Amino acid sequence: MLEVRTGRQGLHEITHDIGRWVHAQGLTTGLLTLFCRHTSASLLIQENAARAVRDDLEAYFARIAPEDPSAYAHDDEGPDDMPAHLRTALTQVQLSIPLMDGRPALGTWQGIYLFEHRHMPHRRTIALHLIGE
Amino acid sequence: MLEVRTGRQGLHEITHDIGRWVHAQGLTTGLLTLFCRHTSASLLIQENAARAVRDDLEAYFARIAPEDPSAYAHDDEGPDDMPAHLRTALTQVQLSIPLMDGRPALGTWQGIYLFEHRHMPHRRTIALHLIGE
Amino acid sequence: MLEVRTGRQGLHEITHDIGRWVHAQGLTTGLLTLFCRHTSASLLIQENAARAVRDDLEAYFARIAPEDPSAYAHDDEGPDDMPAHLRTALTQVQLSIPLMDGRPALGTWQGIYLFEHRHMPHRRTIALHLIGE
Repeated sequence: MLEVRTGRQGLHEITHDIGRWVHAQGLTTGLLTLFCRHTSASLLIQENAARAVRDDLEAYFARIAPEDPSAYAHDDEGPDDMPAHLRTALTQVQLSIPLMDGRPALGTWQGIYLFEHRHMPHRRTIALHLIGE
Repeated sequence: MLEVRTGRQGLHEITHDIGRWVHAQGLTTGLLTLFCRHTSASLLIQENAARAVRDDLEAYFARIAPEDPSAYAHDDEGPDDMPAHLRTALTQVQLSIPLMDGRPALGTWQGIYLFEHRHMPHRRTIALHLIGE
Repeated sequence: MLEVRTGRQGLHEITHDIGRWVHAQGLTTGLLTLFCRHTSASLLIQENAARAVRDDLEAYFARIAPEDPSAYAHDDEGPDDMPAHLRTALTQVQLSIPLMDGRPALGTWQGIYLFEHRHMPHRRTIALHLIGE
């Protein structure tokens, strides 16, 4: 289980935390699965180089699932709650990545991100599973 | 294989059916995979408490991939067919969930849903796979 | 590892390449995982019959994540780069499919596609993982 503390809305890179956990398991080949145990935060693999890409990604999801209370029936938990569920539905809560030479087989430009969709700080937990040898 | 009969468009909770199937396999740890064998129905993990969240989710996907025949070339199978493919593409047909203490490691507020995108009743099949010990 | 050469933007069917690779492994049951090692190409399971469905899918993603430079901060790599990241985020880079009788348990109308989001020809690599017996 990995715990991620998010201080703000947006993409939080967890590539290195995941890499460290995988390394500690000591396997060479296999399949790694990440499962985000929340309905208002999700997982995303995205470009890890240009900061502008992540800004554009955050701005895009803010645009297609806006924090506009008049658009939703559910607003008990604040104007950022329902769009958080929608942005989670449009991305995903689970990722599986094969292992190569003991590491997740990410491409050169791929980073793993927790996508926090709420404004307030949260503790998010990601269940980790690894099978292999 | 799990069969789900859907009588209407929208989210159908299958958390308990999945939990029962997993329990019957008798494993403690491992990885569960659900695979929806359709192109006009999908899988979604979402908030299982407030009914309004599910209503908003259904309304949102109806809005971003509308049943508007003038928007699509493909309309042989009715005005709800092409948007059904789009809504399936925007969500997913596959989910993998680690097992903890013999149960899917869902968060407190997470439920597993089959998202039916057609209006007519359908029989949907979900292939289930479990590996572990 | 599967290499796919894409000559144009859009959906490229890889169902048969995947089926051949799986067959060569000689397993009967198990779980197949595909992982696309890119941030501007993704994976999609979609209807493999009507060509119009794929045209509509391509047109839809072009519409909701348009190639409009004025919409994004990041445009160093051309007007199709940022929308490529967005379309990848809206679909997925990973798919797991259970095996049935030695073959991926796809439904009758399901095909596996690499979704190329850039215009220029690319070599895309998909990491493949199979566990079973």
